[in-house]
Amino acid sequence: MTAAPFDDDKLHEECGVFGIYGHPEASALTALGLHALQHRGQEACGIVTWDGEDFFAHRALGLVDSTFSDPGVIEKLKGHIAIGHNRYSTTGGSFLRNVQPFYGDLSFGGFAVCHNGNLTNAQSLRESLVGNGSLFHSTSDTEVILHLMALSKKTSILEKLTETLNHIQGAFSLVASVGGMLVGVRDPLGIRPLVLGKLGSATVLASETCAFDIIGAEYVRDIKPGEMVLVDEKGIRSIQPFTKSGDRFCIFEYIYFARPDSHLAGKSVYEMRKKIGSELAREAPCPTADVVVPVPDSGVPSAIGYAQASGIPFELGIIRNHYIGRTFIEPTDQIRHLGVKLKHNANKAYLKDKIVVLVDDSIVRGTTSRKIVEMVRAAGAKEVHMRISSPPTTHSCFYGIDTPEQDQLMAHKFSTQEIAQKIGVDSLSYISVDGLYRAVGETSRNAPTPQYCDACFTGEYPVELFDKVNHCGNGRKVTALQERQTKAQS
Amino acid sequence: MTAAPFDDDKLHEECGVFGIYGHPEASALTALGLHALQHRGQEACGIVTWDGEDFFAHRALGLVDSTFSDPGVIEKLKGHIAIGHNRYSTTGGSFLRNVQPFYGDLSFGGFAVCHNGNLTNAQSLRESLVGNGSLFHSTSDTEVILHLMALSKKTSILEKLTETLNHIQGAFSLVASVGGMLVGVRDPLGIRPLVLGKLGSATVLASETCAFDIIGAEYVRDIKPGEMVLVDEKGIRSIQPFTKSGDRFCIFEYIYFARPDSHLAGKSVYEMRKKIGSELAREAPCPTADVVVPVPDSGVPSAIGYAQASGIPFELGIIRNHYIGRTFIEPTDQIRHLGVKLKHNANKAYLKDKIVVLVDDSIVRGTTSRKIVEMVRAAGAKEVHMRISSPPTTHSCFYGIDTPEQDQLMAHKFSTQEIAQKIGVDSLSYISVDGLYRAVGETSRNAPTPQYCDACFTGEYPVELFDKVNHCGNGRKVTALQERQTKAQS
Amino acid sequence: MTAAPFDDDKLHEECGVFGIYGHPEASALTALGLHALQHRGQEACGIVTWDGEDFFAHRALGLVDSTFSDPGVIEKLKGHIAIGHNRYSTTGGSFLRNVQPFYGDLSFGGFAVCHNGNLTNAQSLRESLVGNGSLFHSTSDTEVILHLMALSKKTSILEKLTETLNHIQGAFSLVASVGGMLVGVRDPLGIRPLVLGKLGSATVLASETCAFDIIGAEYVRDIKPGEMVLVDEKGIRSIQPFTKSGDRFCIFEYIYFARPDSHLAGKSVYEMRKKIGSELAREAPCPTADVVVPVPDSGVPSAIGYAQASGIPFELGIIRNHYIGRTFIEPTDQIRHLGVKLKHNANKAYLKDKIVVLVDDSIVRGTTSRKIVEMVRAAGAKEVHMRISSPPTTHSCFYGIDTPEQDQLMAHKFSTQEIAQKIGVDSLSYISVDGLYRAVGETSRNAPTPQYCDACFTGEYPVELFDKVNHCGNGRKVTALQERQTKAQS
Amino acid sequence: MTAAPFDDDKLHEECGVFGIYGHPEASALTALGLHALQHRGQEACGIVTWDGEDFFAHRALGLVDSTFSDPGVIEKLKGHIAIGHNRYSTTGGSFLRNVQPFYGDLSFGGFAVCHNGNLTNAQSLRESLVGNGSLFHSTSDTEVILHLMALSKKTSILEKLTETLNHIQGAFSLVASVGGMLVGVRDPLGIRPLVLGKLGSATVLASETCAFDIIGAEYVRDIKPGEMVLVDEKGIRSIQPFTKSGDRFCIFEYIYFARPDSHLAGKSVYEMRKKIGSELAREAPCPTADVVVPVPDSGVPSAIGYAQASGIPFELGIIRNHYIGRTFIEPTDQIRHLGVKLKHNANKAYLKDKIVVLVDDSIVRGTTSRKIVEMVRAAGAKEVHMRISSPPTTHSCFYGIDTPEQDQLMAHKFSTQEIAQKIGVDSLSYISVDGLYRAVGETSRNAPTPQYCDACFTGEYPVELFDKVNHCGNGRKVTALQERQTKAQS
Repeated sequence: MTAAPFDDDKLHEECGVFGIYGHPEASALTALGLHALQHRGQEACGIVTWDGEDFFAHRALGLVDSTFSDPGVIEKLKGHIAIGHNRYSTTGGSFLRNVQPFYGDLSFGGFAVCHNGNLTNAQSLRESLVGNGSLFHSTSDTEVILHLMALSKKTSILEKLTETLNHIQGAFSLVASVGGMLVGVRDPLGIRPLVLGKLGSATVLASETCAFDIIGAEYVRDIKPGEMVLVDEKGIRSIQPFTKSGDRFCIFEYIYFARPDSHLAGKSVYEMRKKIGSELAREAPCPTADVVVPVPDSGVPSAIGYAQASGIPFELGIIRNHYIGRTFIEPTDQIRHLGVKLKHNANKAYLKDKIVVLVDDSIVRGTTSRKIVEMVRAAGAKEVHMRISSPPTTHSCFYGIDTPEQDQLMAHKFSTQEIAQKIGVDSLSYISVDGLYRAVGETSRNAPTPQYCDACFTGEYPVELFDKVNHCGNGRKVTALQERQTKAQS
Repeated sequence: MTAAPFDDDKLHEECGVFGIYGHPEASALTALGLHALQHRGQEACGIVTWDGEDFFAHRALGLVDSTFSDPGVIEKLKGHIAIGHNRYSTTGGSFLRNVQPFYGDLSFGGFAVCHNGNLTNAQSLRESLVGNGSLFHSTSDTEVILHLMALSKKTSILEKLTETLNHIQGAFSLVASVGGMLVGVRDPLGIRPLVLGKLGSATVLASETCAFDIIGAEYVRDIKPGEMVLVDEKGIRSIQPFTKSGDRFCIFEYIYFARPDSHLAGKSVYEMRKKIGSELAREAPCPTADVVVPVPDSGVPSAIGYAQASGIPFELGIIRNHYIGRTFIEPTDQIRHLGVKLKHNANKAYLKDKIVVLVDDSIVRGTTSRKIVEMVRAAGAKEVHMRISSPPTTHSCFYGIDTPEQDQLMAHKFSTQEIAQKIGVDSLSYISVDGLYRAVGETSRNAPTPQYCDACFTGEYPVELFDKVNHCGNGRKVTALQERQTKAQS
Repeated sequence: MTAAPFDDDKLHEECGVFGIYGHPEASALTALGLHALQHRGQEACGIVTWDGEDFFAHRALGLVDSTFSDPGVIEKLKGHIAIGHNRYSTTGGSFLRNVQPFYGDLSFGGFAVCHNGNLTNAQSLRESLVGNGSLFHSTSDTEVILHLMALSKKTSILEKLTETLNHIQGAFSLVASVGGMLVGVRDPLGIRPLVLGKLGSATVLASETCAFDIIGAEYVRDIKPGEMVLVDEKGIRSIQPFTKSGDRFCIFEYIYFARPDSHLAGKSVYEMRKKIGSELAREAPCPTADVVVPVPDSGVPSAIGYAQASGIPFELGIIRNHYIGRTFIEPTDQIRHLGVKLKHNANKAYLKDKIVVLVDDSIVRGTTSRKIVEMVRAAGAKEVHMRISSPPTTHSCFYGIDTPEQDQLMAHKFSTQEIAQKIGVDSLSYISVDGLYRAVGETSRNAPTPQYCDACFTGEYPVELFDKVNHCGNGRKVTALQERQTKAQS
Repeated sequence: MTAAPFDDDKLHEECGVFGIYGHPEASALTALGLHALQHRGQEACGIVTWDGEDFFAHRALGLVDSTFSDPGVIEKLKGHIAIGHNRYSTTGGSFLRNVQPFYGDLSFGGFAVCHNGNLTNAQSLRESLVGNGSLFHSTSDTEVILHLMALSKKTSILEKLTETLNHIQGAFSLVASVGGMLVGVRDPLGIRPLVLGKLGSATVLASETCAFDIIGAEYVRDIKPGEMVLVDEKGIRSIQPFTKSGDRFCIFEYIYFARPDSHLAGKSVYEMRKKIGSELAREAPCPTADVVVPVPDSGVPSAIGYAQASGIPFELGIIRNHYIGRTFIEPTDQIRHLGVKLKHNANKAYLKDKIVVLVDDSIVRGTTSRKIVEMVRAAGAKEVHMRISSPPTTHSCFYGIDTPEQDQLMAHKFSTQEIAQKIGVDSLSYISVDGLYRAVGETSRNAPTPQYCDACFTGEYPVELFDKVNHCGNGRKVTALQERQTKAQS
């Protein structure tokens, strides 16, 4: 019921962050918080703690559960401040040097930092830093932040942070540990989420509220777009390091990325999804249908919304196999044509001779959709009507979400009618952009300054794609410079 | 949406079996079949093939996915006959020698066998065999079958099988490879399931039909109670090796064990569960409720049934974390009291100030139920009414299901009223035994000769508990003899 | 300076055994004893203990050091009796089921056994046992002993053992734990070694005395050919279970197999080797030589003997690389022709322009010898004279030593003159059979009943090769029966 | 017969280097070269290659053999230039980030470097670099070189290298790959070795000539103290980047570090050791002795020298167990007092009732010496006379050798007489400093400017201990700065 594990035809969140100040079990609580945020990144994870004197770190490729299940590891991570990070598995570049949080031993002391998002001018900054003699050790955009901090000539840590933040552009929710403080920063437009909570006298930061629930922490508020909070023994200070800010939270967090049990900007993600489903039922009804079937697991809440709004019964017409791990049984070529279904199975009793409304959250490349429709038809469905709880995904994301290149996005290349044909459905409807805005509580999209970042649907990028515009990398893919380094470091 | 992985307060199926005759990719298809049957056993798995001349085997502790993902392993398993087995993790005795299928090089040739179930006279047989000089190498009841085959003085394999089968008692669905034949046997009362299918010209046997779906095989029929099928190049022979038989299929397969997308005895498991939910809504209504919430994942179909029958909205009020693996983050003692919730989280938006009907399939020890109720209340539920889609579990199973000792069964020790208090609900109702029979299509339970095995609810054991009665082990736990061996073999 | 690790052109001892009675740290001491006996077998090792009530076991593929370095493993192996075994890596058949000691839960109690040697009628016994309904689980000849014990109708353990021992033929030094006793048996001709020692009040058995030295135990005496010792709380009983016996100890133990620091039959192995070297210097002098160079490491003692007897200086003209592990860097084809020398290097300063006497213990296939001679010549040696401290190896061993098939033995196919040419030396001499007997203290070989087993040099096999003669396997290679089982068990 | 593996009471070489230019199998040859240099460092190893465009790297903790045995790894390391490194296991700091060669993606292109030795001003440089905004990622002194290269404002690579080399002080033999060149540098005093060889048209650099022998390369000459060679398609250029230089090669390489089959400065290491043994026999004779026994394996050549010079027979009175791996069987406390001898065993036949001259290369802490003497006495030796083939080790090394702190050096705290008593010998003699110089071919030590670095015996350090003098670390131990980083990076 959360983001589907290892689903290869979905957009993927590139990271989750967590931070805690003022708890003797800081590292254990961070491990639990990261566990709750596992859906935001499954490639690698790490924790850095501070005990008032020293920093301690543990990073590994793999899931939080296995990385931090050894009590010896947690014990080693002493201290009352901890920050942690989950990393999503992008193709290539998956090596230990890229696992966050990053740490640098700078002239003024240690500095540990991690972030969720993507810096849109990371390449330009990197090239200029290397030109001046900085030595990069990873291919991650996060390392730029360390070098900027190391080189800042400002005297106080707060000034160094402010200077550094004003050099970077993009979408980022950043958590750092420096000078005895836990620091949290959200980019000027608040594209990626970051929430603030309390656990007794301790202060907690996390990408989503589900990381508070797991440890029994209380949600206080969202960090504001462009806000920096500094937490230390004197309490929480709120600073505005950026010259200007707005509010363009990523609307896709409501559609798919966030866990349904999280609240973001005070709204229940599960409720938003159900409302999108209801809106979809209004915009794209299917009155003759016998049954509403979600594509598990991410399509479930909007399917329930659709079913409740339309009065058509909700049924689990597709069953997931729970035991899909990282290691797949690879069917041999000879039996692949048998149409082996490792992940899903049709629940025939509820599909045979039925007119089926199939609800899914998005279509990216369309490969999985086609297979699922085929399976539903093979189970005897009379008609298959696909309803998608997002508008067509026509543009790549450069703000921390792993999207295929634009020319691989089905909705970029084909009309809805063409897609319907290609995936083999009797009808296909996406929710409209305005419908989506209505579902999340707006009257409509405010075209001049939209309330959310919806670039993947509209192509309106709220932060300049600096590297891309300056042909300095494409903002998300590694440049020649980085590729070279990847080979030499692995 | 299948049997919950690693759920520790559930009854557990002890095995799944699969067999195929007449396919050049027999081992790969068996691996896929076992993958679909993974919910029936997660400790270990194995496959034995026959290529017309030699037997080939691979067995390992671990899931099917990782054990058989190496193409080299599948390649090694040559031949057109294959049998496979998933083993459930019972405490102790988890070592490689116990992993099925078992193989013996007997005087008349090789014999490979595996089964799902439990032999109720295995201890008695073992003691008598050891007394006569047989050497046991495992602590599994299955090995008894090998020794009986080895010692049979009959001349034909068919006669040897018949003689062997008439020595063993209990519940078993057995798949074997011997003399160029694939053999399938179901115990005289058909307590454990076994279905027959076709994949082109190949013949397939499996515990459940979901193992046919994954490879695109077609369901033909259920093996009949007390039937033995022998499959070879001449086709399928059906034999009745037992002197008498009946029909007492395990009713708990419908309630919990089987995958919802399977059909057993021609009935959709998912549909049975929904009907139990509907029946439960009639027997134990909760008219003031705002919301019907399943305990995920096994409670979902009956909760949908309950919701549809009652008209109360179905909501996912509890969210599961998908990333629970074999290795758990163990919260330290100091933070355990925070009530860390590794597996589930409350979806507060749908519980707060609500009257909640919580639907689950069973209560065994009651430990998980209490925690879940606590979590639902902490999320702000006004009232919590628990509805259970099985009658109270008052007796242990000796037919292949891992049940706690009877004195640990909550329903054995306490009245429904007391249980309600202990788990903290405002009301608690189980479906009645007759209601359960109605839901699965009977008018009522036929008391003199019930249509199903329902011993765990009624204590009426259809097969004599020979070892137990004769104080020869208790039929399910290892005796001193076996314990001794376990230590010496590990 | 012991048997060279992983040397592939040598004969190899197939096992080492150890047993201890009456020590609270029995398992730890057994692990240490096996460590000292590692040169007798590197594939796998195991220990079985008895604590007065239960047997405990641990077996694994790999070296003793890594298998038993985990204190938890040793702790698990409770008790005051322990037996242990090192297994040599024969090609194929290397799987856990074959790792000794073997254990059986027999009608009269547990029985654990392991042995060093080879049963020459194991196949015949196995076939007859399987024909009567015994179920074999390994492909090891040792399992025959278990079945014979299991089936014996005698009443006392002593009688069962005696009956069993009179069924088996071949060369074996056997250690068992049964009925509260530690049992040691040496075959009627005493072909394989077995020594008895004391450690305080505890009694120790081992293949060689070096296993006593490592734990500070005191050597008492060799077990006599055909003797069985039974050790329990009442002390040590000596029994003669066999009808007749002789004394034909394997003379190759002195030449190569045993560790140089061991004493066998009261004689220092190192001293025997030096004496063989001296005798060789007398039989095959090389008066013009500048330097005596051993092929490391096994040729060192006889080279010292040769040098001292001849007055020619001993020099380490060939240096071994200590870091050759199980995993080899495999040179690619393209650079193999460079003549990469992973294991040895010439010490040029002592070979250049020198007349070199190269001393080695044996030539089996001759492959390594040729390479070493080439290397010595490439380093500038003027002449190379090879001296071998054993007679030509013309026959295979069937008594527990891994020898190639006879047609792969260089000395079976070629004359000494031809071998000299093939390996590229200026002269080649082996010690004579009589010279060898003189070196170990005899006046000469007693042809009618030789004092030692020297079958590999003379072809006179002191124990009938029953399986071979009866075409029932060839005594050492697995038969079709076993091969079939190997595939099905792995 | 090489540096003893894992010997804990010896000084240890901290590294070995290898480089090759102009061979299509550069990486495979480097792996073989590192394998031959394994005695110089066993903790970790790495290779970086360049194929004309990209750099490729593989680094791992562990031995060369296992790290580079996977053909896929070698295949990945494309190119005709390769450099490689073996790292010694110092306590702490053993993590992947410290494994060389290091690589930096600098403004002018990639730069890969590794070295054997120790920079005596690394801490001072590091602190100043961090103060200016450089970000360190390891705790290795080698990283300083990367930063200096990155920050150099010179225009050509040659000038950048020269500038960098003039900033660093200490003992170092450095191999680098940059700008299409293979670079080799030896420190101004040539303290650590570096030799140049040819393999057909390819050029090779290595710490010792044994790395040439393994691949069949030909020795050309030693790199001169203070020389830099640049190898590219135009050939080999020799440059003098330092303002002044001398010749103070580490004399301990002859005594213990180098492999006996290597030639350094044109001299056979084995021959030097034998000559030291002969000189020792003259300086400290033992005319009554029966036998000369080396402490294996490093004492063997000098024992042979002693034996030949004195006419007393050389015997292997102590036997090593070849199977000591990284994982030790840890004897329990209860049996430790039995005096368990995991590594060595006395060859009693040659010690009993004998007057023994025991020859070893050095005494560091004295712990092993005491145990060995005890063992020799327990074997029945009448008298034990220890002869050491180096002068007393009274001072720590700061030039790349792992020495204990000075106050743990036995010869720093005690007189020879006292040491003799403590280790329990009847007499103890070290070779004199002048005797040592004579043995390696000098008439005597030239006191004003000695021909070798002998600081560990004399305390005369030829390169200023800058960090130590300036209290900036102690040159060899990590400072607080580095310790902090170690915790935060691991």
